[in-house]
Amino acid sequence: MRTGNLVVVIPNLTDIHRKQITESAEAKGFTVAFFESAAESLPALAEAEIILGQAAELAKNAPKLEWLCTPSAGVNQFVGEGIFASPAAVLTNSSGAYGVTIAEHTIMMLLSLFRRRLDYDGIVSRREWKRDLPIRSIRNGRFVLAGTGDIGQETAIRLRAFGPKSVIGVNRSGKNPQSLFDRVVPISAWESLLPEADALILSLPGTPETTHLLGEKQLSLLPDGAAVINVGRGTVVDQEALSGELRSGRLTAALDVFEKEPLGKDDPMWDCPNLILTPHIAGNMTLPWTVQRIVDLFLEDLDRYAKGEPLHRKVSLQKGY
Amino acid sequence: MRTGNLVVVIPNLTDIHRKQITESAEAKGFTVAFFESAAESLPALAEAEIILGQAAELAKNAPKLEWLCTPSAGVNQFVGEGIFASPAAVLTNSSGAYGVTIAEHTIMMLLSLFRRRLDYDGIVSRREWKRDLPIRSIRNGRFVLAGTGDIGQETAIRLRAFGPKSVIGVNRSGKNPQSLFDRVVPISAWESLLPEADALILSLPGTPETTHLLGEKQLSLLPDGAAVINVGRGTVVDQEALSGELRSGRLTAALDVFEKEPLGKDDPMWDCPNLILTPHIAGNMTLPWTVQRIVDLFLEDLDRYAKGEPLHRKVSLQKGY
Repeated sequence: MRTGNLVVVIPNLTDIHRKQITESAEAKGFTVAFFESAAESLPALAEAEIILGQAAELAKNAPKLEWLCTPSAGVNQFVGEGIFASPAAVLTNSSGAYGVTIAEHTIMMLLSLFRRRLDYDGIVSRREWKRDLPIRSIRNGRFVLAGTGDIGQETAIRLRAFGPKSVIGVNRSGKNPQSLFDRVVPISAWESLLPEADALILSLPGTPETTHLLGEKQLSLLPDGAAVINVGRGTVVDQEALSGELRSGRLTAALDVFEKEPLGKDDPMWDCPNLILTPHIAGNMTLPWTVQRIVDLFLEDLDRYAKGEPLHRKVSLQKGY
Repeated sequence: MRTGNLVVVIPNLTDIHRKQITESAEAKGFTVAFFESAAESLPALAEAEIILGQAAELAKNAPKLEWLCTPSAGVNQFVGEGIFASPAAVLTNSSGAYGVTIAEHTIMMLLSLFRRRLDYDGIVSRREWKRDLPIRSIRNGRFVLAGTGDIGQETAIRLRAFGPKSVIGVNRSGKNPQSLFDRVVPISAWESLLPEADALILSLPGTPETTHLLGEKQLSLLPDGAAVINVGRGTVVDQEALSGELRSGRLTAALDVFEKEPLGKDDPMWDCPNLILTPHIAGNMTLPWTVQRIVDLFLEDLDRYAKGEPLHRKVSLQKGY
């Protein structure tokens, strides 16, 4: 089935990236074609052996596909029957490219919640010089990070520099990657951490296992005034239960992801108090660092692919990560 | 002149702080009185030997004063003829209490400017799901910190964790405190740094030397898209010149301090584009950590005072720092 054709369909590539991909691929005997959109790439997909792109449409129209690398971390759009015209194709993701940008978003949001950004926005819009709102600090704060992958690790590194009291991870295995966390608790025992969390930071994938992991019961375990930040997948949070806690003023939150995206114009979340809402931008591809990492990670796996070695960023379509 | 009377007039003290001050002072033979406002403290000032408080009125009404400790870092209100009824009194400040809270504000604002908060606020207010605005990162960024005291140092520590390309300090001496900066340039040579600054962070005191240090010429040296953050004193920046650069869209800024405070209701700064404005809140006393530091630093100097040793945080009324 090998055709030697590599089709690249990702936004924000610079000429430097194109050159980097072309030189690396051609040195291995591949022919490269770049497209601005999945639609434009359609004629080339018939003979595509490798695709670097994120639309499910690409997989559907590439009967000779051996490997698809998505520039995203999430792979939900590729999960399901009949999405791959070539069912034996390997899927890899670009987990590892988004930690830096999402960690920066997370720290910004954590500080924004702790330092009463929403209240001060109101004060400034009324041109008041009020200065005495009680605020909170990362210093001596207690943080629970559910998700200890690239995003959780980059966030932990940055949190540390602010002098927190504790940074505790939650994952499936209970293993502590690079000892970046004070300790790591398996997901089965995570509820015990919630009563002592000044902030809960979620960077979990969207899987059947994680759906509504943070539900009404878990939310009720968080102490008054705790901050919830979700930069993983929206399905992890029971949005209606969280809304209740935000409307009552007991918790604050920054949500970048939602149960259903995009949010409809009449979605009540737009107006939810004590919520800083962003439209799924924490981990987009508009940061040059991120695009460079996507290219670098892809080329690392392209090396392995050319040598017949297993790809490092292979994703299980069953598990969804 | 010694009376043994300590008068404390600062907000946000908890019972724990009052107890800590009382026990320490009484153990040294002092009598302590706490007041909620300068006005309430007036009768007690006649016999005050030591004051912990920030209003100039306190100094004016304490003829037997030996030492005034202000909970602020800035001392402008105490500079000038006739402010101290007891001209020999020593003035100390609480520099060292605000670094943590101001560094957190600074990192929040830097990320907010780099990640287009003002643009995304508009997008969200219109309930749009637009996701493709180019953003910037602290990672690999170049930072110039004018002011390498407590605030500059705490900011440098936090910036480091984000993987910047360079963190360069600017101060009077050119000395590098605790080697926290890649290098430190004396203020006389600082203009050479400006063309390579992705962000300029100002934490300088308000003195005749620093007035309009960042003027039209210096602003013009900054590269397109650079971010300016001022958390020191408003007089350091030529506000009109900066406004011009913000209105043209060439620079972005986060200002917590202004040439004249409070800003009047009709001040054009309230509406200035590409500016995140806060009403002098970066270093207020509403963070419990800050109040604890103010108390701890005061009690350290109280120990020295009781032993007849020089006070560590003595401020020159001539120099203003």
